[in-house]
Amino acid sequence: MDPTNDPGLKSFVDVSPGSHFPIQNLPYGVFRPREGGPARPGVRIGDLVLDLRALEETGGFEGCARLPRGTFAAPDLNAFLALGRPAWREARETLSRLLRAGEPRSASDGSFRERLLRKAADVEALLPARIGDYTDFYSSKEHATNVGIMFRGKDNALMPNWVHLPVAYHGRASSVVPSGTPVRRPRGQIKPDDAEAPLLVPTRQLDFELEMGFLIGPGNELGRPIPVAEARDHVFGLVLVNDWSARDVQRWEYQPLGPFTSKNFATTISPWVVTLDALEPFRCAGPPQDPEPLPYLREAGDGAHDVRLEVRLKSREMDAPVAISKSNSRYLYWSIAQQLAHHTITGCNVRAGDLMASGTISGPDEGSRGSLLELAWRGTRPLSLPGGGTRTFLEDGDTVEISGWCEGNGYRIGFGECRGTVLPALD
Amino acid sequence: MDPTNDPGLKSFVDVSPGSHFPIQNLPYGVFRPREGGPARPGVRIGDLVLDLRALEETGGFEGCARLPRGTFAAPDLNAFLALGRPAWREARETLSRLLRAGEPRSASDGSFRERLLRKAADVEALLPARIGDYTDFYSSKEHATNVGIMFRGKDNALMPNWVHLPVAYHGRASSVVPSGTPVRRPRGQIKPDDAEAPLLVPTRQLDFELEMGFLIGPGNELGRPIPVAEARDHVFGLVLVNDWSARDVQRWEYQPLGPFTSKNFATTISPWVVTLDALEPFRCAGPPQDPEPLPYLREAGDGAHDVRLEVRLKSREMDAPVAISKSNSRYLYWSIAQQLAHHTITGCNVRAGDLMASGTISGPDEGSRGSLLELAWRGTRPLSLPGGGTRTFLEDGDTVEISGWCEGNGYRIGFGECRGTVLPALD
Repeated sequence: MDPTNDPGLKSFVDVSPGSHFPIQNLPYGVFRPREGGPARPGVRIGDLVLDLRALEETGGFEGCARLPRGTFAAPDLNAFLALGRPAWREARETLSRLLRAGEPRSASDGSFRERLLRKAADVEALLPARIGDYTDFYSSKEHATNVGIMFRGKDNALMPNWVHLPVAYHGRASSVVPSGTPVRRPRGQIKPDDAEAPLLVPTRQLDFELEMGFLIGPGNELGRPIPVAEARDHVFGLVLVNDWSARDVQRWEYQPLGPFTSKNFATTISPWVVTLDALEPFRCAGPPQDPEPLPYLREAGDGAHDVRLEVRLKSREMDAPVAISKSNSRYLYWSIAQQLAHHTITGCNVRAGDLMASGTISGPDEGSRGSLLELAWRGTRPLSLPGGGTRTFLEDGDTVEISGWCEGNGYRIGFGECRGTVLPALD
Repeated sequence: MDPTNDPGLKSFVDVSPGSHFPIQNLPYGVFRPREGGPARPGVRIGDLVLDLRALEETGGFEGCARLPRGTFAAPDLNAFLALGRPAWREARETLSRLLRAGEPRSASDGSFRERLLRKAADVEALLPARIGDYTDFYSSKEHATNVGIMFRGKDNALMPNWVHLPVAYHGRASSVVPSGTPVRRPRGQIKPDDAEAPLLVPTRQLDFELEMGFLIGPGNELGRPIPVAEARDHVFGLVLVNDWSARDVQRWEYQPLGPFTSKNFATTISPWVVTLDALEPFRCAGPPQDPEPLPYLREAGDGAHDVRLEVRLKSREMDAPVAISKSNSRYLYWSIAQQLAHHTITGCNVRAGDLMASGTISGPDEGSRGSLLELAWRGTRPLSLPGGGTRTFLEDGDTVEISGWCEGNGYRIGFGECRGTVLPALD
């Protein structure tokens, strides 16, 4: 086992037992101190954030041959992402050692804590990278089937291509926002079944989508596909994703070129990127694939991750959020390696910082569905909320919170949360 | 009339009568000297390129209050694009004056020519901007109808939404390349009608798409739509676009989320961005819109541009390219202002440097169709080439060249060309 994943490791930083961020995790992000100052990369540990720019400036990465000076100087992780796994491992080993209990260079050094560690509550977590392109897959068979049944009937639920390739569409990178950013209810063009002509109205069917996404590390040259066996070397880590959707807008606009304005107004991601290295102990098999995919999509070894997922909703009237969906990323039919191999099979180039999301993750049972569209079955089975009231789609003031974690033996590798509150539409 | 558009203006630079780049044009781009040195912004005039970084460094923009120092220091136009029209006009007036015949500061100054002007043949024209997001519309009614007839029959040719909103999809920004970049024939997943299962093969239906695109200037805040009346202020200028497509891949993959790998392997653009200011004398009305669009899409004044377009094909066997399509951007049903207003109606933010393309432009007659799919009517009416041979789709070694220009009185405002040669698929 990679010693940085040792369940016995302890940090000199106090990490509460249920924390998502023990020393085995060490997720990367970008933050800005609330007191002011430039944005910079950091690593989350417990309730603290380690300032990577300051650490680099004080020589903390000296001896790391694969980390050129200035790797953490920019207000994004793109330079670090582009370096690839050997450099990522070097950084991870360095940080794991530095944060370990009893480590003489830092644990007992008051000025280390003073200069380099900040309370997470005192910083604003931003987007971890400049996202060049954002792609959204459609890799949950249960989700695709549910949506297919609702819109095309049981007999044509799954399109014939679905089991042969990871269906996807290009999304909008400019409107990817970090957790906590409010989401304005969009106005859009819809056409109700009983209307003669379309209308421009605030969407009446605002929905969330429970997804996970991955950030690209080193890219490929235009014209050269990434083989499935090498795909994971191009993946830095994973985040939680909420791909907000306006279902009524989507229904009217999506033929024949797919969703456009119904998806381009906001996509929320969790700000701390959990590395594939930290997730390694939680790799597991995805669902069996039948028919067997074409050779360029055949992956040796386990391609999924056992990440428990939860969606919580809190209306204005409620005191606390309530879980409305419990799922797991292992339900995804297509793995991230298969997604990336397919994405690039035509020679499409990917670049450090690109974001690729899974599509809505729905599990096999009703309580594991990843959207209100499915949970309330297109408005026909409203969800009852504990504070009273029901939901078919999101209402103004609703907060949606996605959380995710791997359950280790005595510790969790967590993603924190991916949260957004719905603001009323503009007049 | 804006004096920079005066047809009587002459430059001290020799500009041949048929040139696309007289002093009335002054299109912006980014170039790298073939002899070496960093990429930098420039302006094209006749067969020369004016080095904007060098001009700025030598004080050429002194007195231009709206152009902060360093506007042209980066290897892209993004900073300039973000400044907006008042700054663009200031730069245009300065450049027009500087390049005018008889202008004492430059015309007779040998060292000005020496230091600031280079032969276009001695530079490599690159992408004009860092393109954050790329969107492709579907705004030619004739094209949408032709494709609809081929794939769904005459009765359902145009989807009901098409006349109510500018249909579009998000494209892939990473694979946008400048004119001259070879295009590798992609391998992709297809499923022939008579095949039991899909295959991975080099595409058998590689096609071009004749399009025009625009580059975004100042962006909007997330959550705040751009009103149609203000949309043109967010548009810097136009380029020619070839959105290469693998039709067989597209047909198999596109349902239900739209084209993905069939379009993500290459999009070629012309490198010199022709500004809306230079195109102002060539504004014209687009086709009448019936039904009348919703108020957020109603544009006062002329929204189209009279740009003559030509697609030329040259096979390996041919000595010279031959025109296979002649069209005009005025045939587009939806205007750029309508496209941008619709794109942002949900609050989607756009950013300086974003690229938005029109979708394939097909005109009313057979010779004005903008793709081989339509010109050879899905392979049923092969095109005869002058050197012998026929085409239904592109073959290895074929060069596709799109050209476009506005025909003024005694001069042309041109776009140069958008060219690419098909390389054989990798093994």
